[in-house]
Amino acid sequence: MDFALSPEMETLRGRVRDFIATHVMPRENDPRCTSHGPTEELRNELVAAAKNAGLLSAHISPEYGGLGLDHRGKAVFFEEAGYSPLGPVALNIAAPDEGNMHMLEAIATEEQKERWLRPLAAGEIRSCFCMTEPDPGAGSDPSMLQTTAVRDGDDFVLNGRKWFITGAEGATLAIIMAKLEDGRATMFLSSMNAPGIHIERVMDSLDSCFPGGHCVVDFNDLRVPASAILGELGEGFKYAQVRLSPARLTHCMRWLGQARRCHEIAARYATRRMAFGKELGRHEGVGFMLADNEMDMLSARLAIWHTAWVLDQGQLGTAESSMAKVIASEAAWRVTDRSVQVLGGQGVTGETIVARIFSDMRAFRIYDGPSEVHRWSLAKRVFKKYSL
Amino acid sequence: MDFALSPEMETLRGRVRDFIATHVMPRENDPRCTSHGPTEELRNELVAAAKNAGLLSAHISPEYGGLGLDHRGKAVFFEEAGYSPLGPVALNIAAPDEGNMHMLEAIATEEQKERWLRPLAAGEIRSCFCMTEPDPGAGSDPSMLQTTAVRDGDDFVLNGRKWFITGAEGATLAIIMAKLEDGRATMFLSSMNAPGIHIERVMDSLDSCFPGGHCVVDFNDLRVPASAILGELGEGFKYAQVRLSPARLTHCMRWLGQARRCHEIAARYATRRMAFGKELGRHEGVGFMLADNEMDMLSARLAIWHTAWVLDQGQLGTAESSMAKVIASEAAWRVTDRSVQVLGGQGVTGETIVARIFSDMRAFRIYDGPSEVHRWSLAKRVFKKYSL
Amino acid sequence: MDFALSPEMETLRGRVRDFIATHVMPRENDPRCTSHGPTEELRNELVAAAKNAGLLSAHISPEYGGLGLDHRGKAVFFEEAGYSPLGPVALNIAAPDEGNMHMLEAIATEEQKERWLRPLAAGEIRSCFCMTEPDPGAGSDPSMLQTTAVRDGDDFVLNGRKWFITGAEGATLAIIMAKLEDGRATMFLSSMNAPGIHIERVMDSLDSCFPGGHCVVDFNDLRVPASAILGELGEGFKYAQVRLSPARLTHCMRWLGQARRCHEIAARYATRRMAFGKELGRHEGVGFMLADNEMDMLSARLAIWHTAWVLDQGQLGTAESSMAKVIASEAAWRVTDRSVQVLGGQGVTGETIVARIFSDMRAFRIYDGPSEVHRWSLAKRVFKKYSL
Amino acid sequence: MDFALSPEMETLRGRVRDFIATHVMPRENDPRCTSHGPTEELRNELVAAAKNAGLLSAHISPEYGGLGLDHRGKAVFFEEAGYSPLGPVALNIAAPDEGNMHMLEAIATEEQKERWLRPLAAGEIRSCFCMTEPDPGAGSDPSMLQTTAVRDGDDFVLNGRKWFITGAEGATLAIIMAKLEDGRATMFLSSMNAPGIHIERVMDSLDSCFPGGHCVVDFNDLRVPASAILGELGEGFKYAQVRLSPARLTHCMRWLGQARRCHEIAARYATRRMAFGKELGRHEGVGFMLADNEMDMLSARLAIWHTAWVLDQGQLGTAESSMAKVIASEAAWRVTDRSVQVLGGQGVTGETIVARIFSDMRAFRIYDGPSEVHRWSLAKRVFKKYSL
Repeated sequence: MDFALSPEMETLRGRVRDFIATHVMPRENDPRCTSHGPTEELRNELVAAAKNAGLLSAHISPEYGGLGLDHRGKAVFFEEAGYSPLGPVALNIAAPDEGNMHMLEAIATEEQKERWLRPLAAGEIRSCFCMTEPDPGAGSDPSMLQTTAVRDGDDFVLNGRKWFITGAEGATLAIIMAKLEDGRATMFLSSMNAPGIHIERVMDSLDSCFPGGHCVVDFNDLRVPASAILGELGEGFKYAQVRLSPARLTHCMRWLGQARRCHEIAARYATRRMAFGKELGRHEGVGFMLADNEMDMLSARLAIWHTAWVLDQGQLGTAESSMAKVIASEAAWRVTDRSVQVLGGQGVTGETIVARIFSDMRAFRIYDGPSEVHRWSLAKRVFKKYSL
Repeated sequence: MDFALSPEMETLRGRVRDFIATHVMPRENDPRCTSHGPTEELRNELVAAAKNAGLLSAHISPEYGGLGLDHRGKAVFFEEAGYSPLGPVALNIAAPDEGNMHMLEAIATEEQKERWLRPLAAGEIRSCFCMTEPDPGAGSDPSMLQTTAVRDGDDFVLNGRKWFITGAEGATLAIIMAKLEDGRATMFLSSMNAPGIHIERVMDSLDSCFPGGHCVVDFNDLRVPASAILGELGEGFKYAQVRLSPARLTHCMRWLGQARRCHEIAARYATRRMAFGKELGRHEGVGFMLADNEMDMLSARLAIWHTAWVLDQGQLGTAESSMAKVIASEAAWRVTDRSVQVLGGQGVTGETIVARIFSDMRAFRIYDGPSEVHRWSLAKRVFKKYSL
Repeated sequence: MDFALSPEMETLRGRVRDFIATHVMPRENDPRCTSHGPTEELRNELVAAAKNAGLLSAHISPEYGGLGLDHRGKAVFFEEAGYSPLGPVALNIAAPDEGNMHMLEAIATEEQKERWLRPLAAGEIRSCFCMTEPDPGAGSDPSMLQTTAVRDGDDFVLNGRKWFITGAEGATLAIIMAKLEDGRATMFLSSMNAPGIHIERVMDSLDSCFPGGHCVVDFNDLRVPASAILGELGEGFKYAQVRLSPARLTHCMRWLGQARRCHEIAARYATRRMAFGKELGRHEGVGFMLADNEMDMLSARLAIWHTAWVLDQGQLGTAESSMAKVIASEAAWRVTDRSVQVLGGQGVTGETIVARIFSDMRAFRIYDGPSEVHRWSLAKRVFKKYSL
Repeated sequence: MDFALSPEMETLRGRVRDFIATHVMPRENDPRCTSHGPTEELRNELVAAAKNAGLLSAHISPEYGGLGLDHRGKAVFFEEAGYSPLGPVALNIAAPDEGNMHMLEAIATEEQKERWLRPLAAGEIRSCFCMTEPDPGAGSDPSMLQTTAVRDGDDFVLNGRKWFITGAEGATLAIIMAKLEDGRATMFLSSMNAPGIHIERVMDSLDSCFPGGHCVVDFNDLRVPASAILGELGEGFKYAQVRLSPARLTHCMRWLGQARRCHEIAARYATRRMAFGKELGRHEGVGFMLADNEMDMLSARLAIWHTAWVLDQGQLGTAESSMAKVIASEAAWRVTDRSVQVLGGQGVTGETIVARIFSDMRAFRIYDGPSEVHRWSLAKRVFKKYSL
């Protein structure tokens, strides 16, 4: 049992911290931060800076241009990256690319990796993960998948509609989940400019940190060759799990960084703003909120680290990552909400970045499964465990 | 002890409900709903419809063109109006005009009423209340007031800077709180186009329901005559209290309506969206959230009604309105947050109006005093009461 | 809409308050307060005092010796009675007698009323309500009833086992829920000293306010005549509802009084105990807890009053009483828990009555349905309402 | 960063688990478990069994008869011991002896260790820590110390009154905190049967797990020689800190074990008890509570482990142990309270051990500083940190 970071990891964390402070935070008020995310131009500038700093795609193996961090390394690196909402984009470790790259590295063929993973890891292209569908399709319950893949000779023909497809606008690669005629799910890779893919619209959403926003995407007779199958035919749900546990956890890491940012802004404000005869932070009503923030961040961090360690042992970590998602997303939310409250009127305006993180964070509580889905899944495990 | 509404009040509530459904809700997605609030043009259309329906300025006495509702009547009418974020604007009972009119009717001279209250109650002009100042000025603690009013012959010359001045852009009347050379506070009335008033900018904020947004306003040697004093010289803080208790309560009424809107959208969604083999709402994890919503709305409504009754007895109701603000704002917040959660992905997008109300609602938790200020004030009362 | 009490009700409340202070509170540390409730001797003394004060059985009509209060009257009277854990026993309005009397008055034949209700209302005898059964029998789900009633000529023969039978030890009357051969439930009246009734043991429990404690009771071939049927044959569940809604609500009234007691003890302590340089209550961390107590008590009281009004309109009030139970029991619990916390070390000892109320209150959260059962029932209503 | 236990620690944990199951749990319903704690006779039997199993005083170095566990080792061992409320007593690692032994080992002279530590570690005698005083004396704020120590030749004469002195009845050693004439605090060692020490009474309290209960103790001209000073003269508060951080943490470890016990009883019950057509645990309303229990226990455990690691690095860990106390005590409380709720009626009775742990646990939230004191102390740190 040991909570120490290696000296190398400490150093790397310091480098990320400096990079965020020097190259990313100054761009937070750049007008190219739109309600549908940073523009491609802004993203490219940020990625170029990260490449220059040698900090790109930290979760991918050096063979493909990354730093090869394990899950525990990511826990430290990604939290630091998340200190700015633009940090993960800059460092090429933002959703959905980060999870997509992770899955490609784990499952794709060498040919697929050369074609897609290498340029993704270099930050040259972006990707999207086409899973979620409008009612009555797949949402929290993936088994409700409606998009179909019908074999036609050596090809497959895909039809369906997806939404909440993060980053679709501007993406080069689509990973598409569809069900075969026998009901089994399969993932397919496709260029986004293939005929048969149509981005209907970008949805308005509370969050604004993802390049390309969240899109409604139609697949009309999209034809993909058998070589575009990701992994084995019919194993789509299994691979989704391969993607989901770590992707869920890296989400937590990044958002913990954002929560910390809010806390620090609020805490500094509380040490100088006066009210009713003393500094805000000397009022216990405020000081207790800041103390709770520190405890919430500690709990979130420890749950993340613990799950990262479980994943590093080669385990699936399904229960642990569910617990970490609930603990970290609810804790980070409380931290952000309290930070808004401490800032008072300013907290609900653009005077600080806290209001923006607040809106982003609300969406995070839904991504990768709302707390209710994880509690439901954990409850089933408890039931099974104590039935014996 | 009686919780019944009079038949007249029931009828009036039905009329408001119909008006909101027929004239207001169809305009909620009007592009003239901007991030800085509905445009003047949209507001004028809405107000014209309300005037036509005979529902304008319900809280003002018929003498000045309103319906003359008492506080309990407002509790019913305003909740119904709040069912749409545009409802209070349409019915001319939105902050800050509603509270400003209330205060003018209570305090202003006949001449002041003719000049300002009559066109305000007719919805022809708008007003703003210039109280809050940037750090180190007046915020939750009004005694930190920095804006000065210096007597110069029969006039007063005002200097200072205000922010979070809701609706300043487009307003005709400003009510300005400033401190005299002896430190006492006074309220002054001024036309917004007087020389010496400058709107520096409209602030970005989480909410988007107030025409004119929230502004930074500078006063540079603004000259006002003695006839522009509202009430007695030096009694500004007393009048602020006259305005605050009811204004705080009407806020609660309107936001309760918005919370109910979110709940109903979420509840209807939960009856048809399937997940894991049954409708969402048949999952206890979701059903319990909806049950909690109903309890929270009941608690909020009862606290509002109770305070309204206290005010109708002619009491100041300071403690009761503080309690109602905390109970109602926190309850309405939970209702809205749960509604987002029940809607899942859709809840954080523009697919329904819930995300917009969610953002508006976060700001409401700060307006008219964050919970912490009310708890602080209530704690002092408890201490005093039990010290005896 | 009116929250005023009539002058008569104000006067009555004052009389109850005086009675509790003068006759009941001095006996709270009487050694005859055992872990299984006050002894019969102590109860008899208390009841005699209440009879002398003309305050006995306030919920029963004057015809049978009570004060004939409606539900709103009870809300005021019972809260005041609950200020001492012994108050409801003294005033003969404690569970289960209070609910049993209410049901007898509503349903029993004249003969049954003369035999049982009259001496109950006079405080001369006690009764118990035999509904709950050990696993796998009836608990929160009454349909799981196992106790059987088999017709034998003009009689019925009952067999089964009940537990959590409050007040069985020392009771004269048993009201027994059993199911007929066709599965329908029926209530039977029986003297407790009938052959075939055996009290196996008194259970240890967290609460200690009920005379007779909570018992395990066996029915072995208990024979009752047809004249001992309460109401109609087969209508047991319907009558249970007649008893439950008001009984649930009177529970809330009494416990609100106990919560107020705790709050006042804690608040007074906070005004004089010093810590870290000032009185506890001047620390916001404590003051906010006391402010929350006041808001919780207000919310509980308003929910109770509202439901009482609904019942006084002749409605069943099932949803309202469920909401009142959840709101009031959870609020009263928080008040009591915070009061313990404010008192610090003393709060968890017998130095004040707060620790005893705390233990009693924990059980109250289970009685008459835990919050989860009410949320489940409310969720079903919401689903139905919004399915239309 | 590593969350693995060493194989030796795994083995030791298994031995404790077996010991608790075999030797301790069968005695939980022993009538010698009184409301003032297990009797000396019962304690002696339990200690003899632990000595026989080679599991006594695990936190003390082998030199004095213990197992020499570091803080991380204790985290694992003590949680397992806490699975029964009698476990820590049996294994001689219960408060206050455990903390007293720890402090003696760290601070006492060799002579003092031989006289007191050796028999304590052997479980032959018990000790008490005399710090807390009645109002207006030392409580959460130790600086309010009233007990005096006046030098008289080579001796000191102590006068004062203490309460909440856990285990005083039956203890052989008293460690007494008193203030010198110059206001500095000092700890003195004394035999409990010295003239001048008088146990006035054993207090009634919610908890019942400590041998000897909690006592009111008077010191009247208690004379102690200079050789009975623990550590340096005037350094009492410093030593109290040496004792407090680890003692606070070991409390958390033990109570986490008790919370786990409650959870497991509730979870097993939920897998078999039917209600409304299915097992309780298949109702999400119950299943979610059990899922929350698992997350709360994980959070508590990780906070404890983290603080243990910090202490093992030789740091004081004041902030970490404050955070661990708040996180673990509040989490363990929620777990216990939910377990009561899941068990329904049974949860509030002696049918399971859960109600007893529930009552014990409420007191734990006060011991070693209520959450409010820790939040206050953490808030001061946050303020200082962000003032820079």
